[in-house]
Amino acid sequence: MGPHPAVAAIRLAVRRVLHDILNEAGRTAVYSRTTGAPPASDATPHERPPSPLVLVACSGGADSMALASALAFEAPKLGIRAGGITVDHGLQPGSDLRADEVVLRLRELGLDPVESTAVTVGREGGPEAAARDARYAALDAAAERHDAAAVLLGHTRDDQAETVLLGLARGSGVRSLSGMAAVSGGPGAARRYRRPFLQLDRQTARKACMAQSLPVWDDPHNADPAYTRSRLRHEGLPALEKALGKGVVEALARTAQLSRDDADALDAWAGQAEASVRDAAGLLECAKLYALPPAVRRRILRRAAIEAGAPAGSLFARHIEEVDRLITGWRGQGAINLPGKVVAQRQGGRLVIRQG
Amino acid sequence: MGPHPAVAAIRLAVRRVLHDILNEAGRTAVYSRTTGAPPASDATPHERPPSPLVLVACSGGADSMALASALAFEAPKLGIRAGGITVDHGLQPGSDLRADEVVLRLRELGLDPVESTAVTVGREGGPEAAARDARYAALDAAAERHDAAAVLLGHTRDDQAETVLLGLARGSGVRSLSGMAAVSGGPGAARRYRRPFLQLDRQTARKACMAQSLPVWDDPHNADPAYTRSRLRHEGLPALEKALGKGVVEALARTAQLSRDDADALDAWAGQAEASVRDAAGLLECAKLYALPPAVRRRILRRAAIEAGAPAGSLFARHIEEVDRLITGWRGQGAINLPGKVVAQRQGGRLVIRQG
Repeated sequence: MGPHPAVAAIRLAVRRVLHDILNEAGRTAVYSRTTGAPPASDATPHERPPSPLVLVACSGGADSMALASALAFEAPKLGIRAGGITVDHGLQPGSDLRADEVVLRLRELGLDPVESTAVTVGREGGPEAAARDARYAALDAAAERHDAAAVLLGHTRDDQAETVLLGLARGSGVRSLSGMAAVSGGPGAARRYRRPFLQLDRQTARKACMAQSLPVWDDPHNADPAYTRSRLRHEGLPALEKALGKGVVEALARTAQLSRDDADALDAWAGQAEASVRDAAGLLECAKLYALPPAVRRRILRRAAIEAGAPAGSLFARHIEEVDRLITGWRGQGAINLPGKVVAQRQGGRLVIRQG
Repeated sequence: MGPHPAVAAIRLAVRRVLHDILNEAGRTAVYSRTTGAPPASDATPHERPPSPLVLVACSGGADSMALASALAFEAPKLGIRAGGITVDHGLQPGSDLRADEVVLRLRELGLDPVESTAVTVGREGGPEAAARDARYAALDAAAERHDAAAVLLGHTRDDQAETVLLGLARGSGVRSLSGMAAVSGGPGAARRYRRPFLQLDRQTARKACMAQSLPVWDDPHNADPAYTRSRLRHEGLPALEKALGKGVVEALARTAQLSRDDADALDAWAGQAEASVRDAAGLLECAKLYALPPAVRRRILRRAAIEAGAPAGSLFARHIEEVDRLITGWRGQGAINLPGKVVAQRQGGRLVIRQG
């Protein structure tokens, strides 16, 4: 008798990602990490570096416990070492004890190394963003310390749907609708983070834990209506499903993927077009900008503003629209103030964007 | 004392659209509609065609009554004739009497011509789509009959937000997120329909009716939970606002505009790229398709499938993904069946898509 269907599903998802990691490592690991030198011509598979280490980031919740269990099961079969990290955010009394418990559970699954790392959560960008920043900094550091090939994250399709809705609320276009990537980078490692469960629903992860008798911990933050994501999870998304039907989560996850591809393609276009709309002095020519599709032109304007020093996070669609009107609705208007003391103005058919 | 702010807002919105219509008419109307002949060189403004007619589509609800009142106020000042149409969908007992009442109210506003037109609503695509199809067919016919320069529609920013969410539930990418256009076409008239209130909220339209003591009719369909849009309006969107904050409607409307521009740009790119990936015989070359960004490649595949006879409405993202795997994940898989008996298969490095 095979494993429970939910267990089979989580293992398959992890196995696929581990195969990807091995394939990528096979292509690059034989080159020296420090010198970039190619391998000696007589290098054989036996002389390759030791088996890669894959870490799982685990909160003790159902999603990441399921992920840890699947990693513990699949990694040895592929000659991969499996380890785990849990981050103590220090936001609740007893969070250190909780972290110790997660460490124990990960060790019981056979992971090694396993460690708990404590962080101090700041305030910048609100409580959720601050906790996330601190968490990723700790995971990056752990990955560096252990020379890990990858860090697995337990985000599910439901998390992805929530992320798309959060992006929708920003109203800043396809990039904000593109959710989380299946593969994303950390400092010095372009493909560090992997999200094997991004196509899997939360219910499957939970069932897989039950089927394997894994105790799971429900983070009270996840049910705390003070958090936007929690309100979305427990009220917003269910109401949307009631109105639009059960396929909403899947549709949102698909929107993320399509939006990411669209955003990438348009960014690439804007990157290529940018050179062609600058004059010999490097200034943006209004007539050439005018001839571009609005979606491409606005991306070029946004890039130029960021390059001039405007912080990307404070630069909203309405700012770019106003700059765009210097091109499409020119009637002699004055300089436009952008975040980061950046000023955009039209002078003699050129658009000048610089810190004022 | 000026008008109530809500009345000022609806009039400004209509005035802008009427200016657009006049500007466009100025550029084209002096050319003969039937022969395309340029005007005689001695043509003067006095010899131009009679003043254009703009119709308002009016259900008797707050949005379209506000629109009718603003049209009645603004059109004469610009030398435009203002008329009105109400469509009797025949879906409720007494709908014909209701339509007669709307006709009376529009006449009281000073509109002329005003008419009611009865339609038979079919079943295709569900009750909402069938009613919409019948309504637009009637409006198109009325516009032709009266040789109208444009038909104004009362859709507000709230309607736009609902439309974006409905598109999101389809999960088919930016085009489905782009909502309703401020200007859209009908048969034989590329810019027939105008939506002056697309940036205005529903509350403003309602206030403008109250301020002008205009009686309004609340269509019971709008509150009927049997309709997806109604559930979205009364449950889905309020819950989303509760979770994400009051700016959601505005963010959704902005998403619509940005998505429309993105979709247009990517469609243009795909249109240009398509020729470059076909061989001398007109077949799609897999290697060249592979080199394109996924967002552009999938659009070319979609266009090719539709060109081969697949009905656009039944062609989903998952179909295109499967065809795309013939390019990006080729492992000798067989022909792929698409809607409309269209078959896609890879043969000798070429992608062949045709009706089987």
